[in-house]
Amino acid sequence: MSQDHAVHAPGQVAGGWRPGDPAAGRQFAELGELPLERGGSLPDTTIAYETWGRPNAARDNAVLICHALTGDAHVVGPAGPGQPTPGWWDGLIPAYLDPTDWYVVAANVLGGCQGSTGPSSTAPDGRAWGSRFPAITIRDQVAAEAALADALGIDRWAAVIGGSMGGMRAIEWPLLYPDRVATAVVLASTGYASAEQIAWCAPQLAAIEADPHWHGGDYYGTGEAPLAGLGIARRIAHVTYRSEYELAIRFGRTPQGDGRFAVESYLDHHAAKLAARFDPGSYVVLTRAMNSHDIGRDRGGQHEALRGLRSRLVVAAVDSDRLYPPRLSAELVDAHPAAGPLHLVKSPYGHDGFLIEVDQVGQLVADVLH
Amino acid sequence: MSQDHAVHAPGQVAGGWRPGDPAAGRQFAELGELPLERGGSLPDTTIAYETWGRPNAARDNAVLICHALTGDAHVVGPAGPGQPTPGWWDGLIPAYLDPTDWYVVAANVLGGCQGSTGPSSTAPDGRAWGSRFPAITIRDQVAAEAALADALGIDRWAAVIGGSMGGMRAIEWPLLYPDRVATAVVLASTGYASAEQIAWCAPQLAAIEADPHWHGGDYYGTGEAPLAGLGIARRIAHVTYRSEYELAIRFGRTPQGDGRFAVESYLDHHAAKLAARFDPGSYVVLTRAMNSHDIGRDRGGQHEALRGLRSRLVVAAVDSDRLYPPRLSAELVDAHPAAGPLHLVKSPYGHDGFLIEVDQVGQLVADVLH
Repeated sequence: MSQDHAVHAPGQVAGGWRPGDPAAGRQFAELGELPLERGGSLPDTTIAYETWGRPNAARDNAVLICHALTGDAHVVGPAGPGQPTPGWWDGLIPAYLDPTDWYVVAANVLGGCQGSTGPSSTAPDGRAWGSRFPAITIRDQVAAEAALADALGIDRWAAVIGGSMGGMRAIEWPLLYPDRVATAVVLASTGYASAEQIAWCAPQLAAIEADPHWHGGDYYGTGEAPLAGLGIARRIAHVTYRSEYELAIRFGRTPQGDGRFAVESYLDHHAAKLAARFDPGSYVVLTRAMNSHDIGRDRGGQHEALRGLRSRLVVAAVDSDRLYPPRLSAELVDAHPAAGPLHLVKSPYGHDGFLIEVDQVGQLVADVLH
Repeated sequence: MSQDHAVHAPGQVAGGWRPGDPAAGRQFAELGELPLERGGSLPDTTIAYETWGRPNAARDNAVLICHALTGDAHVVGPAGPGQPTPGWWDGLIPAYLDPTDWYVVAANVLGGCQGSTGPSSTAPDGRAWGSRFPAITIRDQVAAEAALADALGIDRWAAVIGGSMGGMRAIEWPLLYPDRVATAVVLASTGYASAEQIAWCAPQLAAIEADPHWHGGDYYGTGEAPLAGLGIARRIAHVTYRSEYELAIRFGRTPQGDGRFAVESYLDHHAAKLAARFDPGSYVVLTRAMNSHDIGRDRGGQHEALRGLRSRLVVAAVDSDRLYPPRLSAELVDAHPAAGPLHLVKSPYGHDGFLIEVDQVGQLVADVLH
């Protein structure tokens, strides 16, 4: 399997930013102790973030961009030392979100591995958190972003925008902090992790946790990491991110020179790429956070939660998305009295359409902020 | 993970029938050397089979039932010693296929693990085949069934009926042996493994082959087997066999007492069940055989292959099937001049609907044989 090539030098943790690596475009906010939804707290929380543009005098031009599962704070711009990937939403800034007008902020999510506190971070005892990293929720991630907003002096976002797992934060934001969000833009996402979404995560979690290098989550410092398991998880996830139609048209039954099918090599490639840049421990922590997502929890259900929402809500689904099917987005607008129509992004690519169809999504963002 | 409970006593291979186990309802045909499509041959091929009813004097009342990936020759009837599962199509016989009229035959597929020759079988050198088991195709499986038909004295089947992987054999049968099939009944299947089907198999194969107990396929006799990997494969496959709608209605976000989600426990259960009864080596061999499926290979493509088909062709798809979407079934009837309309089984259950909706499918079979 090609992820076997993605081995790291002994003593190195799997993919992910480590203190001492080049900061690239990142800044770091030291946010202190963060209380957690399920009890307890994280001490010494750090959130890595990038910004584009500057706050205006009224500080009412701030926009928060929330990344998806394996994204980071690098929304646009090239890869380079300390930054393993080019921007995951290249094309959005400046064409549709001009930093001469807007102060754009993007944070690496709590639990992540690109500079924010996660399981690969060093705990107060000097060892990696590993299995001791607490089970966090989407609400905890939003609370960390709110602490970042405090640190940046942003009382209220003009918009909080996110897709997929980022959309989970975008919809949680105005529910947790009703006065701090003018407009939430929720793309290819949902008000709760569905049974199917949880079901797809089950073999992904099992694959990582069955990897002999997992060591119950305490592989940091062993010189090895459960990269084969992470690669299996990525293959599963990647198919859910695309569409049957695209795979049929793009690959069909075409063989590779090595006797494998082209679609198998394609999945191998994506598995190896992720294994080289992402920490399996973060993948597990963030997956479980997504599974926890339910805006109706302790709020009387989704409908009741949305009924009282005072922020403007803009929701878009990708028509061919099978992982976050449009009906889940429709439930959001149906439950919010002033949400307006559900926007449909037309795409043959499935869930990933929210990233690929940057012109449609960018125009929606531009219209929202107009 | 619950499949950890499905451990076997040292020295035992994972699930699957072994010589010396009770035969249950099975008979065994010793078919000698079987030439293989990709060259070479299998010596001393054994095919396990069950029968219901008796051949009539004209020997024109024989029906062959072809099982899917993890099925076996036990179409109907209880589980018992030597037979780990009740019939996978209970309800079909006698209600829709009466053994007072029909001589029904079902064989465990070549490469399987319920009495037919597969990777867990003993090779001529006295050791298990393991990694030395040749890469077989659906056509090889049909050739083995044709050798069984010879042994049974059946020149021509009144019908060859199969769903999913069994449907692959049902459509290959009249193409390989045009004079030996009156009617082929192809359920929830396809003329070729699609890019998506191959893509879903990729993480399943990777999970089994990454299991430390896999040993390159030569784990037989080690006292251990890659059951964790097989369980991960089953979780993936099982989600593809069902529908998003069913999972949402049936499980939603319901928690279990142990803090896990009900849908997670459901997948754990299916993983453990399969690990207790099925051989991971067979799973790999049969998965690769399914990936090889392409009725158009060496026949000028699917359309050309079907254009010359002389047998009657009856095709049914499950309306909610996302693994074998109805369009693949439609391609079969569209390419065959006399195929008749595509039958649609109405079901909320997805691909597994061809097993669950036994009344709809049974009525179709009864109508075909009327």
